Amino acid sequence: MKPSPGEFELIAHLCAKLRHSRRTIVGPGDDCAVLAPARGAQLVTIDSIVEDVHFKLEWTRAEDLGARSLAVNLSDIAAMGGVPTAAVINLAVRPGLDLAFFDRLYAGLCEEAIAAGVDIVGGNITRAKQLTITITLLGEESGAILRRDSARVGDAIYVTGTVGDAAAGLRILTKQLSARGAERRFLIRRYVRPTARLRAGRKLAQMRPLPSAIDVSDGLWQDLGHIIERSGVGAEVDASAIPLSPAYRKLVGNNPELALRGGDDYELLFTLPPGMSEPLLSRRLGVAVRRIGTIVRGTRATLTREGPRRAGSRVDLAGWDQLRNAR
Amino acid sequence: MKPSPGEFELIAHLCAKLRHSRRTIVGPGDDCAVLAPARGAQLVTIDSIVEDVHFKLEWTRAEDLGARSLAVNLSDIAAMGGVPTAAVINLAVRPGLDLAFFDRLYAGLCEEAIAAGVDIVGGNITRAKQLTITITLLGEESGAILRRDSARVGDAIYVTGTVGDAAAGLRILTKQLSARGAERRFLIRRYVRPTARLRAGRKLAQMRPLPSAIDVSDGLWQDLGHIIERSGVGAEVDASAIPLSPAYRKLVGNNPELALRGGDDYELLFTLPPGMSEPLLSRRLGVAVRRIGTIVRGTRATLTREGPRRAGSRVDLAGWDQLRNAR
Repeated sequence: MKPSPGEFELIAHLCAKLRHSRRTIVGPGDDCAVLAPARGAQLVTIDSIVEDVHFKLEWTRAEDLGARSLAVNLSDIAAMGGVPTAAVINLAVRPGLDLAFFDRLYAGLCEEAIAAGVDIVGGNITRAKQLTITITLLGEESGAILRRDSARVGDAIYVTGTVGDAAAGLRILTKQLSARGAERRFLIRRYVRPTARLRAGRKLAQMRPLPSAIDVSDGLWQDLGHIIERSGVGAEVDASAIPLSPAYRKLVGNNPELALRGGDDYELLFTLPPGMSEPLLSRRLGVAVRRIGTIVRGTRATLTREGPRRAGSRVDLAGWDQLRNAR
Repeated sequence: MKPSPGEFELIAHLCAKLRHSRRTIVGPGDDCAVLAPARGAQLVTIDSIVEDVHFKLEWTRAEDLGARSLAVNLSDIAAMGGVPTAAVINLAVRPGLDLAFFDRLYAGLCEEAIAAGVDIVGGNITRAKQLTITITLLGEESGAILRRDSARVGDAIYVTGTVGDAAAGLRILTKQLSARGAERRFLIRRYVRPTARLRAGRKLAQMRPLPSAIDVSDGLWQDLGHIIERSGVGAEVDASAIPLSPAYRKLVGNNPELALRGGDDYELLFTLPPGMSEPLLSRRLGVAVRRIGTIVRGTRATLTREGPRRAGSRVDLAGWDQLRNAR
């Protein structure tokens, strides 16, 4: 497609900032980027964030927007236990945004890329009505590939970090919730600047038997649904075990509904045979890990009030299971 | 990002149609696609087509739109002499398009992918105000990488096929030109359904010394500008040698201006030492090839009226050289 002179300038301007590792043979400026051959199996993921669908510019600094656009892809690589290597960026640019904005966007994007060891090797710029950042991220396997379809009956279900913070942060931004001070800052930051659990994913990929894993992007309940659907199993989740941050508890209370339904956490949800303590697992993965339930026979996910090990006491909470079928 | 139930359905519906080669270890449905390790250096390119910027739905069948969205990426792989292997698709979907539309879009996309040996291994769907198809295409080198920066003084400049047809076709679609019958159909088809010169690119990558190459997407004059700028050379182009189709000549006449300025040809522009005849080169590449000029010392591209070998008679055509600087 024929870029306008303004698009050329923006491409040249942004590309001039990029530095690459030895992995990159040809960076931006030719028809394709060229990368040295991967040693192991290769991972590929694409994700897109669209203005007024996934973000509003008044919610976020341009730097955070750039960083977030890569982080959501990094999280997909983390969920497969891979090492991210290289990215190409498609920017759809609407009128009214100046070069300084894109400089800051790229500064955040490059900061996130450098921290994750990712080369930005190419891109494309087009006009559009909505600012849209679409990124394809490549990675390599590190030992083994974590998949959604390998949960086994009897596995314990774990999640890293805390969930629901990003959903609460989004509701603060959209004025559905109000908060102040440190809680407000923490929850909003969890939405606008998520952390991909790359190290935890790599560590999980070294464990045997291999855990099943997914990143929590659609919401914990829905993402657990993806695991049980693909693995052909059921799940029991202990509502009281869902890890909620102090800020979430202060603002939302102890009700985990938002944490279960809300998306954008970018934590890892995974299953493995029980027996490893939470502290040991947390130490090994480098992030707090909470056991939230157990994989069981069947095809349903059930939320219990009193802990997954006391199956006789479980209560199906109306409304939860239908989420499982929203797919 | 949390897809809506409608987006999930569309993903599942479209993914169900995909078939893969043994290269693909994990296809759509997990956090990332997983591909077997590439044998050689790996090519990556991303391109995007946006409704009302690059196409209008009344111009094109959905099948052609799908095929074109992949073809423009295939052309980038062709220009580097590579073999395309796998693609991921980001669909930005606006209201008002039904499932039958996307079925037809994917039918065209898959037809193009199968013909080129490409696995569609994953994707993402988001809402937006404009229908946008963004594709990242991966490929592997086949022997060597063709680059823009390797043109040498004395090289002959060649182009495959004919140029200007797509620009004329676009002007018919936008009612800036009027045409009928076979010419109309031919020129519009050259715009809406371009052919990536994959075989010609692979054959060029086997030649020594290695040709420089680029695909003609921005317009022949501008793309030649990319070659000479990156190679640090100048060029003389013989206006009368520009290959124009009979349909172009009938509609536009013998003036090559539109052929030089217009984009979207997706032919290959390449340079190599002179000495191979046009018929021999055409036979070897499997497509008609025309010699259009010579790489010279300097930094400018000059259009001559009487052939690049008669440098004494060259005439700088006012207006042409400024295009060179539009970058």
